[in-house]
Amino acid sequence: MDTIELPPAADFHAHLREGDMTRIVAPTIKKGGVSLVYVMPNLVPPITTVPQALSYHSGLTDLEPSVTFLMTLYLCPAITPAVIEHAASTKKIIGVKSYPKGLTTNSEAGVVSYEEYYPVFAAMEKHDLVLNLHGESPSSETTTILNAEETFLPTLLDLHARFPKLRIVLEHCTTAAAVEAVRKCGDTVGATITAHHLFLTIDQWADNPHFFCKPVAKLPSDRAALVEAATSGDAKFFLGTDSAPHPREMKIGAKNGRTAAGVFTQPYAVQLVAEAFDKVGKLDMLKGFVCDSGRRFYKVREKGLEREFGAEMGILLRRGGDEVAVGQIGEKDKIVVPFNAGKGVWSLKWRGESSEDH
Amino acid sequence: MDTIELPPAADFHAHLREGDMTRIVAPTIKKGGVSLVYVMPNLVPPITTVPQALSYHSGLTDLEPSVTFLMTLYLCPAITPAVIEHAASTKKIIGVKSYPKGLTTNSEAGVVSYEEYYPVFAAMEKHDLVLNLHGESPSSETTTILNAEETFLPTLLDLHARFPKLRIVLEHCTTAAAVEAVRKCGDTVGATITAHHLFLTIDQWADNPHFFCKPVAKLPSDRAALVEAATSGDAKFFLGTDSAPHPREMKIGAKNGRTAAGVFTQPYAVQLVAEAFDKVGKLDMLKGFVCDSGRRFYKVREKGLEREFGAEMGILLRRGGDEVAVGQIGEKDKIVVPFNAGKGVWSLKWRGESSEDH
Repeated sequence: MDTIELPPAADFHAHLREGDMTRIVAPTIKKGGVSLVYVMPNLVPPITTVPQALSYHSGLTDLEPSVTFLMTLYLCPAITPAVIEHAASTKKIIGVKSYPKGLTTNSEAGVVSYEEYYPVFAAMEKHDLVLNLHGESPSSETTTILNAEETFLPTLLDLHARFPKLRIVLEHCTTAAAVEAVRKCGDTVGATITAHHLFLTIDQWADNPHFFCKPVAKLPSDRAALVEAATSGDAKFFLGTDSAPHPREMKIGAKNGRTAAGVFTQPYAVQLVAEAFDKVGKLDMLKGFVCDSGRRFYKVREKGLEREFGAEMGILLRRGGDEVAVGQIGEKDKIVVPFNAGKGVWSLKWRGESSEDH
Repeated sequence: MDTIELPPAADFHAHLREGDMTRIVAPTIKKGGVSLVYVMPNLVPPITTVPQALSYHSGLTDLEPSVTFLMTLYLCPAITPAVIEHAASTKKIIGVKSYPKGLTTNSEAGVVSYEEYYPVFAAMEKHDLVLNLHGESPSSETTTILNAEETFLPTLLDLHARFPKLRIVLEHCTTAAAVEAVRKCGDTVGATITAHHLFLTIDQWADNPHFFCKPVAKLPSDRAALVEAATSGDAKFFLGTDSAPHPREMKIGAKNGRTAAGVFTQPYAVQLVAEAFDKVGKLDMLKGFVCDSGRRFYKVREKGLEREFGAEMGILLRRGGDEVAVGQIGEKDKIVVPFNAGKGVWSLKWRGESSEDH
């Protein structure tokens, strides 16, 4: 297959940031073949109230009216069962994201103990909101960034056992162990897989700040397990790019000498996934992973979370013919460098849209 | 103990580079408490002939006459048994360094198969030169930078079995498995341990290019094994800093986007080791690790490789009172950033030297 027609894709884990950065990143959503994004809440300050989430939603929709934005709240003590009930009634907020404290970008307000949130989880179960887990344990004498995800898996299994009807997504899973744990759970547990984790292992990011993200890419055997899960047709696994733009100077030569965690894939989301699927001869599984499974898990159609699009609307992918923008998107101190800049990639065109939608 | 008097220390693995960089780095050797350095040969082009090594030696000695420089040759097809015999006769070249092809800075000319060098190893055994092994296997579907050292250990054991009298140093060992393998070998096998590997684990270097080196720092359990080996009094383990200066722009924002591998510790070599030993209450083992064991392994006194120094000559270490130069050493495009820049460290003064030696 040298060309593929797909419906519009959905990205169930994206970082769209604020202000100037949002104005740079939002227009790249559709370039990546995506018409629906689930937007992460780790802003400064984090999105912890319904009005904040709705205001963020409205700003994003103003910028990109042809994209459907769905929102999460940042799990913290401000999130109560009453907030959950209110959030669920909006039909725009569809989940709550849990960050373990201190583990990634803007996670300082994150969770220390899950137990205190059991009433919130019960309310989420009742009102059918999704729990999004950043599944890493904090580092210690026995836990490092390498086994942080595997060390977290018992928490996933425990929460699933306590709240079997609560839909839970293990976000950006990176290990064979995580894939196995998610498969072991019931239908209410799914996992997002990013585009970049279908490509990277530790050897690639060790000396390349643009490939450094949390959770870090692991071993070749882990990458193989992710590719297998993504291309398997198992609807538990679907695309969440975790596209995480940072200004170039935060990736390279950051003032404090630390590299910001995050890989920017938004403008090439589906193109990159197509390349990964193509490598293993599984392009026939692409639609399930990037279009269908995530929408099904989140009950997008059932709940009317997205406007209907006709069968003629969607994207056309063509092998080769495009190249990831070399070096940069944006201007001045907001320059962001996309994943695999300068490399060839599948080209993508929208079809069935009037030109002013582009 | 708040102060310690030691004889001059020896660093059995240092990168002193060429040209401007050498002029920046060479004066930092004595600042780090070291009077004898074993100088790595991975220049561009590498040091593969006796005249090259002697010329490099003479340039270094001109720069720092009070330091003893000992040289290695870069293992490659140009190194024959006749070269070994010639090298041994110089009393300045005391070993041969083996780099697996492509594994670290300037290792493109490195070793693919050890078997072709058996005649060279036999000549080294005969003429009592030391084999210095960069002990990492190339990455593959099953080998990454994480297990590259452990994967290499069977090669170490095999070479030791074939050439039991050949002195072999496993350079900059970074894993509990390597410590165990070296202990299992006879007295002809030793290992260097760097200052920075007594501090770092993967979590520290993942987002900090200044802490990135090859072999990469591994897990907390590996670091603990290195600290245990270094402070154990076992004379198989001794200091080789692997201090590897790179211009700041090669560590951060390198043009090709890749971070150069290497941590620069030369100006604080003994001070950093003192801090690591102090943390575990083993300052009484410092002298063996930084002064005695390496010189004994290399037969420095027996072979008259270093001029004698009187008992009054040496270094005085004092807890606290100094700080690692903030940000930079050198100028313009040769700025190098030392390990743990800005952090407090043991202070170090030379004693028993006339002031013009400083």
